[in-house]
Amino acid sequence: MMDTAFTRRFDLTAPVALAPMAGVSGGALAAAVTHAGGLGLIGGGYGDRAWLERELAAAGNAAVGVGFITWSLAKQAALLDLALERKPRAIFLSFGDLAPFAPKVARAGVPLIAQVQSVVDARAAVDQGAAVVVAQGSEAGGHGAARATLPLVPAAVDALPGTPVLAAGGIADGRGLAAALALGAAGAVCGTAFVAAEESLASAAVKQAVVAGSGDATTRGRAFDIVRGLDWPTPFTIRTLENDFTRRWGPALEELARFRDVQAAAYRVAQAAGDTRTAAVIVGEAVDLVREIAPAAEIVGRMTRIAEGTIRQLRDVVR
Amino acid sequence: MMDTAFTRRFDLTAPVALAPMAGVSGGALAAAVTHAGGLGLIGGGYGDRAWLERELAAAGNAAVGVGFITWSLAKQAALLDLALERKPRAIFLSFGDLAPFAPKVARAGVPLIAQVQSVVDARAAVDQGAAVVVAQGSEAGGHGAARATLPLVPAAVDALPGTPVLAAGGIADGRGLAAALALGAAGAVCGTAFVAAEESLASAAVKQAVVAGSGDATTRGRAFDIVRGLDWPTPFTIRTLENDFTRRWGPALEELARFRDVQAAAYRVAQAAGDTRTAAVIVGEAVDLVREIAPAAEIVGRMTRIAEGTIRQLRDVVR
Repeated sequence: MMDTAFTRRFDLTAPVALAPMAGVSGGALAAAVTHAGGLGLIGGGYGDRAWLERELAAAGNAAVGVGFITWSLAKQAALLDLALERKPRAIFLSFGDLAPFAPKVARAGVPLIAQVQSVVDARAAVDQGAAVVVAQGSEAGGHGAARATLPLVPAAVDALPGTPVLAAGGIADGRGLAAALALGAAGAVCGTAFVAAEESLASAAVKQAVVAGSGDATTRGRAFDIVRGLDWPTPFTIRTLENDFTRRWGPALEELARFRDVQAAAYRVAQAAGDTRTAAVIVGEAVDLVREIAPAAEIVGRMTRIAEGTIRQLRDVVR
Repeated sequence: MMDTAFTRRFDLTAPVALAPMAGVSGGALAAAVTHAGGLGLIGGGYGDRAWLERELAAAGNAAVGVGFITWSLAKQAALLDLALERKPRAIFLSFGDLAPFAPKVARAGVPLIAQVQSVVDARAAVDQGAAVVVAQGSEAGGHGAARATLPLVPAAVDALPGTPVLAAGGIADGRGLAAALALGAAGAVCGTAFVAAEESLASAAVKQAVVAGSGDATTRGRAFDIVRGLDWPTPFTIRTLENDFTRRWGPALEELARFRDVQAAAYRVAQAAGDTRTAAVIVGEAVDLVREIAPAAEIVGRMTRIAEGTIRQLRDVVR
């Protein structure tokens, strides 16, 4: 059991939150992380209402939160009402302006967790009412921006006295969790660590690619967003494993946009077939540390156990 | 006093090495870091023999090492002989193939420290005879590659059983040092933390820009190498503060190459005048953590004191 400002605020035993990954962090995975003592978060994604209703139901009465892609939520604000009706443990917003949503979350009495990618946005998030700020580094899987976790977290901690800061990006085991705490974070938000969890909604093909993946071979770019027709605003790009698709189209975005319709059709076929030479395997640089498919409870348990052991061993360094 | 495989190997009291920054890490700075209990390294840079002789002399009889840019050293291999004649505490090589140099360093009985930017290169460095491997993340100032420190270090540690790994990139205070140790590193290599040290050879203008700089506003690219006529091989780029020069030329590298002669003349003028709107301020994302010009001994002392305090405080997290 670990004790930080984050665990106290949310009554957790593990200072670990599940990243609300679109299409991956469903109700079963979020519930499993919550039952293991962390904070489970369902990924609201790009606004599929039926999906969100189903996954909220799948979480049962586990105390889970819901995450949204802020710029996408702005197009379907009613999804926030749907989430708030369920009295979520938290609302997690990333990638956009909090201002249109923060007052409604506050009125519902739900804590707002805001994920940011810079110190300037960390300050703005607190000004707009975030109770917890997630400092997300570029090494994270999925969408993110340019700054790295290791120097961003202490800078955010210094900029936000009194607000718990969580570290996101690059943390997939207990050593990373202990490092995040050393930097002054009150916990970590982990995505890559859970993509290959048994309860994850990622396909079997994606899970296999994750456990075989190398952190030397991930890339951040826009090709997958272009082919999927997702209008991600600047400065956000998506980190995935390198594959045939990123090698072909990463350096040729204008050409991809020109031939988008035919490429999109081919992409959908590859995705349906589990062909990860073309389909995105959305994962961060910490993928080296994920070597098996395991239940989420085991992942949380091992992460906190190793973090505790690491903290104990660090005592030997100080003479 | 801290005790790791790195401090034991080099008889240090602080698990901190000075990054051998070209033109910045001279003899006085390297000696000051060594006298403070760390490992001082003179930056051999791009092969100015007179500069290296002067700075080796300036280090007096302090036990310092010498770092080289490996691809540049390949053009002037005699500089390695010059360094080895002084019985350096270590030779530090980064950015290129170790094979032409490792045997000579071994014959001289000098430990070889190899800096790498991927797990694949970490393995190769040990195969080629590195005694210590530095895993350098992209958040580092100056030259580097794509992977971030936080996920790279534990992956390198796992890949290199029995070899001490140092973390480089993003570490400029005691929290970062404690985090590096939590990741399994035996210490940290720090550049940004020392650019504004009193003993640093950086200009007064650069030191002022560093203490005022923001980690949100650094960038990694090739424009400064092009204008300086430095033939850096792929995949290495240079991280600096954003300024007028990076905004103008970062997105226009072909145009810059075309007009290089006139831009190079203007660049030299700006550099001589200490005009950091044009001249490079070579610094990493951890620049937020450097807020004053201080003696190197004070920087090393504060870093280890805060790291020790952080490690002690972490005990309170484990219940």
